[in-house]
Amino acid sequence: MAVMEQTQTARFLRAVRGESVDVTPVWFMRQAGRYLPEYRAIRSRLSLLEICARPEVAAEVTLQPVTRLGVDAAILFADILLPLVPMGLRLEFQAGEGPVIHNPVRSPADVAALRPIEPRESLAGVLETVRLVRGALAGRVPLLGFAGGPFTLASYAIEGGSSRQFLATKRFMYGETRAWHRLLRRLSDAVSEYLVAQIEAGAEAVQVFDSWVGALSPADYTQYVLPHSRRIFERLRAVGVPTLHFGVGTGALLELLQQAGGDVIGLDWRVPLDEGWRRLGPHARLQGNLDPALLFAPRAELERQVRSVLAQAEGRTGHIFNVGHGILPGTPVDAVRAVVDLVHQLSA
Amino acid sequence: MAVMEQTQTARFLRAVRGESVDVTPVWFMRQAGRYLPEYRAIRSRLSLLEICARPEVAAEVTLQPVTRLGVDAAILFADILLPLVPMGLRLEFQAGEGPVIHNPVRSPADVAALRPIEPRESLAGVLETVRLVRGALAGRVPLLGFAGGPFTLASYAIEGGSSRQFLATKRFMYGETRAWHRLLRRLSDAVSEYLVAQIEAGAEAVQVFDSWVGALSPADYTQYVLPHSRRIFERLRAVGVPTLHFGVGTGALLELLQQAGGDVIGLDWRVPLDEGWRRLGPHARLQGNLDPALLFAPRAELERQVRSVLAQAEGRTGHIFNVGHGILPGTPVDAVRAVVDLVHQLSA
Repeated sequence: MAVMEQTQTARFLRAVRGESVDVTPVWFMRQAGRYLPEYRAIRSRLSLLEICARPEVAAEVTLQPVTRLGVDAAILFADILLPLVPMGLRLEFQAGEGPVIHNPVRSPADVAALRPIEPRESLAGVLETVRLVRGALAGRVPLLGFAGGPFTLASYAIEGGSSRQFLATKRFMYGETRAWHRLLRRLSDAVSEYLVAQIEAGAEAVQVFDSWVGALSPADYTQYVLPHSRRIFERLRAVGVPTLHFGVGTGALLELLQQAGGDVIGLDWRVPLDEGWRRLGPHARLQGNLDPALLFAPRAELERQVRSVLAQAEGRTGHIFNVGHGILPGTPVDAVRAVVDLVHQLSA
Repeated sequence: MAVMEQTQTARFLRAVRGESVDVTPVWFMRQAGRYLPEYRAIRSRLSLLEICARPEVAAEVTLQPVTRLGVDAAILFADILLPLVPMGLRLEFQAGEGPVIHNPVRSPADVAALRPIEPRESLAGVLETVRLVRGALAGRVPLLGFAGGPFTLASYAIEGGSSRQFLATKRFMYGETRAWHRLLRRLSDAVSEYLVAQIEAGAEAVQVFDSWVGALSPADYTQYVLPHSRRIFERLRAVGVPTLHFGVGTGALLELLQQAGGDVIGLDWRVPLDEGWRRLGPHARLQGNLDPALLFAPRAELERQVRSVLAQAEGRTGHIFNVGHGILPGTPVDAVRAVVDLVHQLSA
């Protein structure tokens, strides 16, 4: 159908509501970051946490991909673990090792010692970044805020860093179930307050990244996580901005993520979009789902697979194009730029 | 229905054929290994590859869990990467690092340099282990052989070790597609010959572990892997022993794994068994699917979840109880033993 050309902000927000759009909006998880030379230039003199602590720098990093790529949304540059710091966890990023928490949560007493956060004080730098970016964007594209989901934050808090098996996390969940629920309650309170503060500062939509929750069975997700995720989305519904909900490898959990909340459900590349609509209903709004490894593929293969993603969404409203997981370090910038152009051309 | 008490071999083989059993057969992926003190005692003086190279030791390790746990099947102790060595890859296990291949496959020329294998010569030690174990078991429980699936073997060959993103693998797959298919053809030829040789030596069923193939979208699996997996299962069908097919995080690929082949499809804990039967048909035979992290849980939670797995299979034939991924190091042996007893009691 012919649709008048829309501003990028209108395009994104209409897609979130399932309304018709001129072209499919597109942005990329981790669109700001290591693959961009202008980001690497900044990282050569500042650490990740130093960037997050300097609003003018974090704002610049947030804006870099908007300028460079022509994406239809900006996403705040920050780290999902930042709220753990004012809760009392000592976070450090070690070169080549990823995040390390020096005092991980290992007992009910550790949970009890966590502090509630007042994001307007302890995360004021992030909120200032939101204000700076929102001002600089001047309505060109919408600004997305974000936070980690409760399972994912708990996993870092308990493991003390990244994990493949999440064994310490699951042992705590199964073995210290009351303390687990208290932990997830505290985390979801913190996430809710943090996201509300981002929205007050100017974020026009927010995404909850429960990135690692796909490590759980549907029954365990339902019992151990869903009530806490639902509280976050209920709190956000009261505020009234659009919400997005995403985790990697959550093919078996999609209906449950939808029940927990989120106007838009993000899919990784393992579940085709058309299957997503079949399972979540024709009025669902879906985000995804190109395998980010395809950004390293020859252009013909990349284009074929971008077409395939768009073909699965054809004739539907409520699609936001994205990768199915964050952009990988080393990704060629011109491939990312080509995807933006291709999505806009092919969906026109 | 009342069924006469069966030998464990009959129980396992009847379940594979979807026939009624006296109790649900149970075994565990990685049931031999680091969590067993008698295995650790051997590992304190021999490396993993040294154990694999000494048939009498590998046979002892294979038999340890049969004696200790009362499982309904033995699985050959070996490493999925062994066939890569006679193909020309220099494999080493480094302490704490996992497998390292010193000359990974990075170009079409590297693929061309791979040698076909003659498992009766180059993997004679493994086949001797099969013969020793089969003799020692004397029909008590069936002996399963196994090999890695083509994507999983290719991923180690290309990455040079373990991987989280499989980026080098996917770049090769997308970018050197002809060489990729030659590589997978060579790997599936090697796997087929190796499994046929295991069967000739006495393996009574074989499992293909395409452990990491869940990293692919259904479309990519169909295009880049399925034809090669299918060749393996077609070759095995001609030999006539039961086959099992498993990968982690393959919830989106189950129908495709079934199409590729395997009398039994293994599920990890992310897809409930009843959903497996709904998707694969009422006559499908399924293996799984307890989260191995539950073996660390308090006994009440472990028991509740074992009951839940069995309840999903209730009233069906064709279920083999297993974990949804290998047993983890540090797993309490008494929990594993308790699951065997519980499965037998509850399903009687």
